[in-house]
Amino acid sequence: MRHKDGGNVIKKLLIANRGEIVARIIRACRELDIKTVAVYSDADQSAPYLKDADEAYNLGPANPVKSYLNIEKLIDVLKISRADAVHPGYGFLAESYAFAQAVVSSGAIWVGPPPEVLKAIESKCYCRRIADSVGVPVLPGTNEPVRDANEIFQFAAKYGYPFLLKLDKGGGGKGIESVNSEEKIKGAFERLSRIGYMAFGNGDCYIEKQVMMPRHIEVQFLADHFGNYVCLGERECSIQRRYQKIIEESPSPVITEEDRQTLYNYTIKLAKAMGYRNAGTIEFLRSEDGSFYFMEVNARLQVEHPVTELVTGVDIVKSQLKIASGEKLNVEQEEINLRGHAIEARVYAEDPLSFVPSPGKIEKLIFPSANGHFLRIDHALEEGLSIPPYYDPMLAKVIAWGSTREEAIRRLREALAGFHIGGVKTIIPLNLMVLENNSFVSGQFYTGFIRELLAAK
Amino acid sequence: MRHKDGGNVIKKLLIANRGEIVARIIRACRELDIKTVAVYSDADQSAPYLKDADEAYNLGPANPVKSYLNIEKLIDVLKISRADAVHPGYGFLAESYAFAQAVVSSGAIWVGPPPEVLKAIESKCYCRRIADSVGVPVLPGTNEPVRDANEIFQFAAKYGYPFLLKLDKGGGGKGIESVNSEEKIKGAFERLSRIGYMAFGNGDCYIEKQVMMPRHIEVQFLADHFGNYVCLGERECSIQRRYQKIIEESPSPVITEEDRQTLYNYTIKLAKAMGYRNAGTIEFLRSEDGSFYFMEVNARLQVEHPVTELVTGVDIVKSQLKIASGEKLNVEQEEINLRGHAIEARVYAEDPLSFVPSPGKIEKLIFPSANGHFLRIDHALEEGLSIPPYYDPMLAKVIAWGSTREEAIRRLREALAGFHIGGVKTIIPLNLMVLENNSFVSGQFYTGFIRELLAAK
Repeated sequence: MRHKDGGNVIKKLLIANRGEIVARIIRACRELDIKTVAVYSDADQSAPYLKDADEAYNLGPANPVKSYLNIEKLIDVLKISRADAVHPGYGFLAESYAFAQAVVSSGAIWVGPPPEVLKAIESKCYCRRIADSVGVPVLPGTNEPVRDANEIFQFAAKYGYPFLLKLDKGGGGKGIESVNSEEKIKGAFERLSRIGYMAFGNGDCYIEKQVMMPRHIEVQFLADHFGNYVCLGERECSIQRRYQKIIEESPSPVITEEDRQTLYNYTIKLAKAMGYRNAGTIEFLRSEDGSFYFMEVNARLQVEHPVTELVTGVDIVKSQLKIASGEKLNVEQEEINLRGHAIEARVYAEDPLSFVPSPGKIEKLIFPSANGHFLRIDHALEEGLSIPPYYDPMLAKVIAWGSTREEAIRRLREALAGFHIGGVKTIIPLNLMVLENNSFVSGQFYTGFIRELLAAK
Repeated sequence: MRHKDGGNVIKKLLIANRGEIVARIIRACRELDIKTVAVYSDADQSAPYLKDADEAYNLGPANPVKSYLNIEKLIDVLKISRADAVHPGYGFLAESYAFAQAVVSSGAIWVGPPPEVLKAIESKCYCRRIADSVGVPVLPGTNEPVRDANEIFQFAAKYGYPFLLKLDKGGGGKGIESVNSEEKIKGAFERLSRIGYMAFGNGDCYIEKQVMMPRHIEVQFLADHFGNYVCLGERECSIQRRYQKIIEESPSPVITEEDRQTLYNYTIKLAKAMGYRNAGTIEFLRSEDGSFYFMEVNARLQVEHPVTELVTGVDIVKSQLKIASGEKLNVEQEEINLRGHAIEARVYAEDPLSFVPSPGKIEKLIFPSANGHFLRIDHALEEGLSIPPYYDPMLAKVIAWGSTREEAIRRLREALAGFHIGGVKTIIPLNLMVLENNSFVSGQFYTGFIRELLAAK
């Protein structure tokens, strides 16, 4: 962390993102005596964290392509501010090889995995090959992009329906088509290739057998530059709407200690094989029979990292900064015990049933009275702030800790019921519907939970 | 916790106290589905927690003797409200045998140790005798009240100076005279006897050899009705002004694992010998050579209980309610690990140098932006509230958690620096002076710390 002269390796950090995660990263920097540089688009001029940063630079128009996705502009700010490192947060350019490479080429530190890792894992087929090669189970599918519809027919003949057609450069729930009959193959393949070409300049697709009633379980890990790895428990992220998580928890209600050791073993094998450094997450699918399959690598800080922080006591953002500064991990696997249970609800400015975004002005803001009492709220809100329509409409993350899962759920319910955000619609009613649902409370759920919950209405 | 019919043993709880601890207890009750009855004096009509309670009753005039210390009135409220249990909080009647007995006689549950225990430990000499009888070290002194000044001269001849003359019915830092020479004996004895007679109707004094540069270390424990005991780590409470704690932490920076086992052993021996039930604390003095001596029993919830909750993950207030309901302890000693470090600063409405109370109206209130982020703030404040001059002027407790002591101190400093309470003076500047002091940060301090810190100004 420190140079021989006693100063930090990272003296000033550019945070290339917006919203609550900027406030989160600023906190970690303050504790480490690192100065912070924030950026903002024209739509975010009033963001409350800008005054907490040591410096703040305008990136230009609200359109993310011109601001938060504008590598050239961000590198300009990096140079002008003389920041010596960049934290990309999540979303936007967090997993962009081009951005990471530009940061490194300019002589600054990238707070994340090496650019080559980001480059390699852009291809989901590459990730499947790596997993396969080190003995981590993958679902039946193709480890190379499919060349034509014929290949898909052959797969279907062998493995049956349904299966997923996925974009090789997709990820995060985007670029996926479920195929459940022969006549749908051609259409799905053409549609997806076209989308991929438009979105990523690359229409490559691959096939993955679809797991029915899967659960989404992911393992958070840290890797330093000295070959040390540590896994920080798993997160259960099966409560999703449109492949996007809304409620996450740790530990998972279905993971046994034996499962955990299996998942840790898979995770570390994969991280080693990829040459991964810094904080990362391996996502797995758990099938109904309790088997695990590798799904994706998330090469960045995750939205849901606080649940892990609350059950392990490890500050993941500070760990990222320390690893990036060349420090050794100061915690060993044996020291990681999951204490109690933590559960997070993402509060989006959306209609709770249709998921249509509801941007607008926060007219009234009342935090739950128990804030701080076994409760953490990560946000960048204040009364009078306008939620712009240009970005992900997440308003806040409410995270409750309890000695048991039941206690944590109870505290989260109380907190959400006492959280008043006036002026915009929020999905708090949906969050509460989940948290009060018997199947959820008993731990019996899978990724289709929200869809079925709403279909039953 | 539950009757055979599925209902709670405690259905409705009377909280016989005021201030932040009422808000704390209401939270625990909500989580346990227990209805709450709050009380208030005329000076506390606007207390924010009154609207969170299910019912609230006026006790009468601000004068505590007529309100929060008024047993008759409180028993009336207990009957009118049909509450089936009483939580006394801390201070006021929390350790009153007469109140506990009146509650029990009226058929309600006392959330605390049995009244007989409260009766017995009113006498500090009794406590010394009990400790002595089970092999817990006590300081040289008398285990019976001294009959006359002559006895004191004899003690001084044998053990030398300085020693403390203490009221047998005193406690909590009240009723203590330090005697450092022969000519002061008579005056101190007469003065203290008179004070004791006026305050408690009993002027009995006892002698205790004075420890130079002591540290105040206390052990929190829980005891159920089935003979189970569990110790929840120790708290370091040496940072005091006028024998009153202002900064507390857990674990103590000087306690080794071996020390901890010794203190646990003493604590459980004492709790057993007294027939103690529910939550309690044994206070010890640690002398400079590392020896421990029994000091006091605190037969109630302590102000500083949150630091223990943050490092052990055990909810002490919920534990009290469960034990009082006849539940078995659901945690074993082996499961108690102290994770990381927690430190609390009490924020009083006082002049930070003279400790003169500063009641008045809270004109402006801005909580630290990190509230909830490894930070807990227990309080009953809101803008516009008037802090009455009649009671203890504690405004809030700010508690920070860190993976190390250094990190916890750092977070507490940040939090206090960002906590703005306008309209009254607070001791935040003094808290910060302590938290920034090198001796404090290095763990080198004892109970005279604040006195010396201020003398050096």
